[in-house]
Amino acid sequence: MKVKKAVITAAARGERLYPVADTVQKAMLPVVDIDGLEKPVLQIIIEEAFASGIEEICVVCAPGDGARYIDAFTTLRNNLMESFKRVDWAQKGAGQIDHLLSRTQFVEQKEPKGYGHAVYCAREFVNGEPFLLLLGDYLYVSHLVQKRCAAQLIDLAIQENCSVSAVHATIEHQVTRYGTLTGKQLPNKPGVYHIEKIIEKPSLSEAELELQTSGLRAGYYLCFFGMHVFTPSVFSILEQHLGQNGGKSLLTPALQELAEREQYLALEVRGSRYDLSRKHGLLRAQIALGLAGEAKSETLTTLVEALAEAQGR
Amino acid sequence: MKVKKAVITAAARGERLYPVADTVQKAMLPVVDIDGLEKPVLQIIIEEAFASGIEEICVVCAPGDGARYIDAFTTLRNNLMESFKRVDWAQKGAGQIDHLLSRTQFVEQKEPKGYGHAVYCAREFVNGEPFLLLLGDYLYVSHLVQKRCAAQLIDLAIQENCSVSAVHATIEHQVTRYGTLTGKQLPNKPGVYHIEKIIEKPSLSEAELELQTSGLRAGYYLCFFGMHVFTPSVFSILEQHLGQNGGKSLLTPALQELAEREQYLALEVRGSRYDLSRKHGLLRAQIALGLAGEAKSETLTTLVEALAEAQGR
Repeated sequence: MKVKKAVITAAARGERLYPVADTVQKAMLPVVDIDGLEKPVLQIIIEEAFASGIEEICVVCAPGDGARYIDAFTTLRNNLMESFKRVDWAQKGAGQIDHLLSRTQFVEQKEPKGYGHAVYCAREFVNGEPFLLLLGDYLYVSHLVQKRCAAQLIDLAIQENCSVSAVHATIEHQVTRYGTLTGKQLPNKPGVYHIEKIIEKPSLSEAELELQTSGLRAGYYLCFFGMHVFTPSVFSILEQHLGQNGGKSLLTPALQELAEREQYLALEVRGSRYDLSRKHGLLRAQIALGLAGEAKSETLTTLVEALAEAQGR
Repeated sequence: MKVKKAVITAAARGERLYPVADTVQKAMLPVVDIDGLEKPVLQIIIEEAFASGIEEICVVCAPGDGARYIDAFTTLRNNLMESFKRVDWAQKGAGQIDHLLSRTQFVEQKEPKGYGHAVYCAREFVNGEPFLLLLGDYLYVSHLVQKRCAAQLIDLAIQENCSVSAVHATIEHQVTRYGTLTGKQLPNKPGVYHIEKIIEKPSLSEAELELQTSGLRAGYYLCFFGMHVFTPSVFSILEQHLGQNGGKSLLTPALQELAEREQYLALEVRGSRYDLSRKHGLLRAQIALGLAGEAKSETLTTLVEALAEAQGR
């Protein structure tokens, strides 16, 4: 099995990043990436996929947003080319955008019919191949220097020839915000689980009764990390669910069914995730990516100067 | 003299914040303000003016941007009202936007004819009164708990009944980026100067020959801080310059003439300025405002967690 395609969902999830008025604006917020260049959030997510072996991208977005993304990236690219003589990294930045635009298509989700439906909108793009699924408002920092979070996931999917979802051991009071699951740890594969049961945003008591996983610290549960590799089976399940629910579908029930039909693993990815829809989410992501990459000393200087200044007041 | 009106220039200054494609997007970037709420940059600037006694605001923007700002703020306000039950600060946030919109007008600079011309576009709004002038892409943190940067400036203007520009003692290698000036320190008024000569972005040797100011540390010069209070005289000077230069005008030559015509002071404001058009400018501003205000402990926690995480990798 090869994983050469990625789907990124950038339609609204109901969670908004205040005070940003819309999803395009949110996806275009500037963050200094680990290569030291300041880029829109969506570009950083797309480049995580490229850096993990992905060759083609499909961004599922709200009606009308596809043209706005292309416009925004094109303007940015042209601005960079204009300032080519003044900013030494402008040419590299423009080249990255050219690469991104030549390998990315935008598909619109016409109506907000659930996250499962958003994924289903990419079925023609995916065209029967396994694919990587990413969220448009999460940024990742891998704890492994040589391997991105998405690459860790893809490697396991290829090795085991099955669907794999990234998970994170999460403290109990946070499980109510995430898809949460349980399963049996694979022998001799630390951090890899056979998924048995998944509940979307469980209550604490549901989690305690049904989602405890042996091998985890007490009070911790396996929650989705917002990153998956799926076999195309997920589309036939989604299609069935859409038919039964008047065209609406969430992703989690489809994944529960996937776990019953075929081997479906969870991997505790070695990395951190930054949810840009949370308060201070953008700030956290900026600092984390800044400290993880080539701008590390510059970011540290910024932090230390800011702390010293605040202390001096 | 009273200062009840503020002009904020938000048309492009030729300096772009990469990777943000346009000025509206840049002005709407989210930053946690000193009151702990996440807001667009432009709102933070407008509220600096309100907190300093200003009652009416005129934002000078590029053609078409006025409607886009009103749209963006209105959408944001509506989103906040929708999430009123979910987010405890939503109502306060929506109220702030209502207040902002009811006291702000947007005036378009039809053509990019220089910064002096941009200011001149606000003459009908200003209507013969003294006014505060702010830049749309600078954020300020006062070093005085009880008095904002703009309030320090306005207080001196009222007290001395004249125009006052905020300045900052700046190390010599940075003077080439700013309007730089010299003058005589007022007796018994530390940090207040009679302005005598102003040069826009001087070379180092120009600064050394013509702009040394006694009383400053060696190698330091007085540079504009991006904040001024002007008497309406500035408009008659700008009008004359616009007539002589085919409708184009920079601000600094007009200010040089203002200094020759009437009393015109500079004040070393006790505060820090964050230029959002510079690399890491947004990050610096976010950290500085976060640490200066009600979100201080939350911001510190974010910084310490991020540093600990980066160290652990």
